[in-house]
Amino acid sequence: MAESEIKLLGAWPSPFVMRARIALNIKSIDYEFHQEKLGSKSQLLLESNPVYKKIPVLIHDQKPICESLIIVQYVDEAWSSGPSILPSDPYDRAIARFWAAYIDDKWFPSLSGLAKAQGEEAKKAAMDQVREGFLLLEEAFGKCSKGKDFFGGDRIGYLDIALGCFLGWLRVSEKMNGVKLLDAAKTPGLAGWADKFCGDDAVKDVMPETDKLTEFAKILFQAKANAPPPAN
Amino acid sequence: MAESEIKLLGAWPSPFVMRARIALNIKSIDYEFHQEKLGSKSQLLLESNPVYKKIPVLIHDQKPICESLIIVQYVDEAWSSGPSILPSDPYDRAIARFWAAYIDDKWFPSLSGLAKAQGEEAKKAAMDQVREGFLLLEEAFGKCSKGKDFFGGDRIGYLDIALGCFLGWLRVSEKMNGVKLLDAAKTPGLAGWADKFCGDDAVKDVMPETDKLTEFAKILFQAKANAPPPAN
Repeated sequence: MAESEIKLLGAWPSPFVMRARIALNIKSIDYEFHQEKLGSKSQLLLESNPVYKKIPVLIHDQKPICESLIIVQYVDEAWSSGPSILPSDPYDRAIARFWAAYIDDKWFPSLSGLAKAQGEEAKKAAMDQVREGFLLLEEAFGKCSKGKDFFGGDRIGYLDIALGCFLGWLRVSEKMNGVKLLDAAKTPGLAGWADKFCGDDAVKDVMPETDKLTEFAKILFQAKANAPPPAN
Repeated sequence: MAESEIKLLGAWPSPFVMRARIALNIKSIDYEFHQEKLGSKSQLLLESNPVYKKIPVLIHDQKPICESLIIVQYVDEAWSSGPSILPSDPYDRAIARFWAAYIDDKWFPSLSGLAKAQGEEAKKAAMDQVREGFLLLEEAFGKCSKGKDFFGGDRIGYLDIALGCFLGWLRVSEKMNGVKLLDAAKTPGLAGWADKFCGDDAVKDVMPETDKLTEFAKILFQAKANAPPPAN
C-alpha cells in the first residue's frame, strides 16, 4: 500500500487531531498532513465528514474515518502488526473505553468551560470541576497502570492518548489563569505520567510547545470575542 | 465459568439495558437480571457504577462494566467464540462505531426531546429532527447492509443493536403523538429493517410490547410532572 494513500485532515493545535497523529506514530505510519485553516473548512473536509464537518478525518485508500477515538481504534485494528494501542484483555479494554468516554463527555467540557467562564466565581467552579476530574482519573491511573508508567502499562495506549492529548491546552489554561490544575501534591500519579507522556517518542513531536499554543489561544479567543452574536 | 457469575443490573423499559441483553442473547449467555426499581438505586448499582450511577451495568466475575455500547463491545470480545457482533473489517467497524455514536449523541436526543417538548411548535421541531436523522440513517443502512437485511449484513450486529433498542420507545412516541416517525414511504430500508430486527431471535423476547411500554411511559411522565422543580 502506497504511503501517500493515507491523509489526515487536521490542524496542529487540535487535541483531537493529536490523538490520530499519536496513533499513527505508534504504528510508524507515514501520512500526508492536510492542515485546515482557522475559520474555514476545505472542500475535502466537507466531503469527507458531511455529518459533523469536523477534524480530524483520516482518509485511508480514499475512505474517510471520522471522530478521534474511532480513528485511534481504526489505526490499531488496521495496522495490527504494530504495537497494540488498546489493551489485549477485554475487561481492560472496556475500562479504557469507559474512561476515554468520561474524559470526552465530562472532564474535557470542564476544561473547555474554564476558557469560556466569565467572572471569578464561574472560573473557580470550572477549575474545581477540572481538579475533581483529575482525582477520579488519578484513581483510574492507579488501577489501569498497575504500578507501571502509563495507563496502558509499559507503553502509551488508548487511554494515555485520550487524556494526554489535552496536556498542551491544560498548560495553556494554567498559564493564562496563573494556577496549577494538575497538582503533583494531589495527583502525584498523573503528574508523573504527564511528564513521561510528553516525552514519549510518539508524542514529543506533535505536542505543541506551550508558548506557541498560548499565542494561538489568544488569537482564537480574540476571534471569538469579535465574532457577531448568534442569530437567536 | 459458572453462569451465575454474570449479572446485569437493569430495568425492562430501558433501551440501553436492552442493548446489553441483546448482545448476551446473541452469544447465548445466561445471566441474572437484577431489575432496579423506578426512582431508586440499589446499593449494588451505586457501588458498581460510582461515576454515573446508571444502568446498565454488566457484572462479570465480580467486575463491573458500565455504558451500554461498551458492554456490547465487551460481550463481543469476552465471548469471542459466539457469533461476532462487530464487523470483522476495521473500516466497517469504524463506520458502525461512527453511526452508533451519532445515534447516541444526535439522534436519540431528538427522540427524547420530543417527549419533553411543550407546545405544537416545539413538538414539530423535534419530530422533524427525528425524521432528518432517519434520512441520514437510511443512507447509512444502504451502505452498511450492502443489500442484506441488517446493518450488520446477514445477521444483527453492533449498529443494529445501537439503533434497534429504541424501536419500542419510537412506537410509544408515534402512538402518544398520533404520528408516523419511521415512514416506509420515506425510509423504506429502515422500515423493513425495523420489522426484521424486532422479529430476530435475540431481540423478540426483550423488546417491550408497545402497549405495556406506553403505560409505563404515562407513569414515568406523570412522576416527572409531579416532581418538585430543580433547586435552581
